[in-house]
Amino acid sequence: MRWVRFATGNGAVYGIVEGDAVQEVEGDPFAGYQPAGRRHKLADIRFLIPVVPGTFYAAGLNYREHVIAVADKLGVAPKLPKAADIGYRANNSLIAHGDTIVIPADATERVQYEGEVVAVIGRKTRNIGAADALSCVLGYTIGNDLSERSWQGEDNTLWRAKNTDTFAPMGPWIETEFDIARARTRVRVNGKETIDFATADMVFDIPTYISRISRYVTLYPGDVIWMGTDGSGPNLKHGDVVEIDITGIGTLRNPIVREGAA
Amino acid sequence: MRWVRFATGNGAVYGIVEGDAVQEVEGDPFAGYQPAGRRHKLADIRFLIPVVPGTFYAAGLNYREHVIAVADKLGVAPKLPKAADIGYRANNSLIAHGDTIVIPADATERVQYEGEVVAVIGRKTRNIGAADALSCVLGYTIGNDLSERSWQGEDNTLWRAKNTDTFAPMGPWIETEFDIARARTRVRVNGKETIDFATADMVFDIPTYISRISRYVTLYPGDVIWMGTDGSGPNLKHGDVVEIDITGIGTLRNPIVREGAA
Repeated sequence: MRWVRFATGNGAVYGIVEGDAVQEVEGDPFAGYQPAGRRHKLADIRFLIPVVPGTFYAAGLNYREHVIAVADKLGVAPKLPKAADIGYRANNSLIAHGDTIVIPADATERVQYEGEVVAVIGRKTRNIGAADALSCVLGYTIGNDLSERSWQGEDNTLWRAKNTDTFAPMGPWIETEFDIARARTRVRVNGKETIDFATADMVFDIPTYISRISRYVTLYPGDVIWMGTDGSGPNLKHGDVVEIDITGIGTLRNPIVREGAA
Repeated sequence: MRWVRFATGNGAVYGIVEGDAVQEVEGDPFAGYQPAGRRHKLADIRFLIPVVPGTFYAAGLNYREHVIAVADKLGVAPKLPKAADIGYRANNSLIAHGDTIVIPADATERVQYEGEVVAVIGRKTRNIGAADALSCVLGYTIGNDLSERSWQGEDNTLWRAKNTDTFAPMGPWIETEFDIARARTRVRVNGKETIDFATADMVFDIPTYISRISRYVTLYPGDVIWMGTDGSGPNLKHGDVVEIDITGIGTLRNPIVREGAA
């Protein structure tokens, strides 16, 4: 099942994607819903982020080639994480499928995508074992963890390197039937594929993260966990379009502008 | 004006503290309110966190003696921050005035308080100068940034060192008339004062943080910015009570238990 969140004259609503149509519902996939009796063309809706998270978690370095690539860019030795220590991103940075990524005027040219699978928590969870951990996941969506590499290297935190407004596109929807073992993550810039990796090829997998987090931290419905990315990407510039495609979920597409460049 | 949030049979509501009474309102201090016509004894209410933040910001190292003390504990050289680079905490860790701090069973004995003044954002703000920055602040509250120092030193992130459930008491209310220049932050453990410092003695002040954040990041009503702490504190143990007092705001008081110790 595909849960999409979109804008109407009455505010944000959820719907279920059925082919090229969307069945609007009253309520939401977390607390419960019923059909609203309204049907929309998928092509006509204005996408919103599929959920406003209570907490926005991010695994950070979680694929081998990416760890090596980032270390190389920062001029330090690569170091694989020893444990599934989660990090955080901020809601201000979230934008929906189709929305425009805005690179600040004073950013360097080193702004790069990171294509990530995102687990969306469906129910309140504390102290869950890895074997059962996926039972608290409602479904999966796609994230683009935009990163300004000079700020990532220089600042004390990742606050503007990764949390600048519009730097976290998420969507287009939440897919509940995702099979990560068969999935590949592919990124295209202006239609040209720039990377292709096995989505499941993580240092620590999703059950490991959820189990470890939930030992100390309560997960809530609507929390999202971005699982990291592999490899590295080219610098993105004004006028580019980035698409992140994950098998079985769909495609997250966002155009890019640079502030003051239009 | 003092804004308190508390639990009723109809859910969470806001009220205005007037001496030993609370005037309940309909609405909230961010979007607007009107008197509900119900009055409560302050002593009778069950406090809730004064706001559920959209984003929970934390300045981290922002007082000189604390920078030196933390570096000493971690066995590294002290390094004052070069810029007002903000960090993040997570909503799961928030508890209200009076709620119990729970130290996980496997935490070391090195769990310590950090008494902090907290700025609560009142309106949507982007690109504000330092001279005007305080105009977007609704008021101030108190935070206790509990920290497990061994996890802080060993983990890749601060996720469990500072974001374990119950590790972020915040309250008791939002004071809109706070004069930081005259304020002192005092912490008491079991009634005995353990630290006393000038609340305003920060490396980077609140206007500097807000101005810098808002250059890249939109601040929203209800966002909170925890401003860091000075000095260092003793290890806290099962049965202790921590009180953080900031002149002109009030006192945030929380008892402590250790999981499995009762």
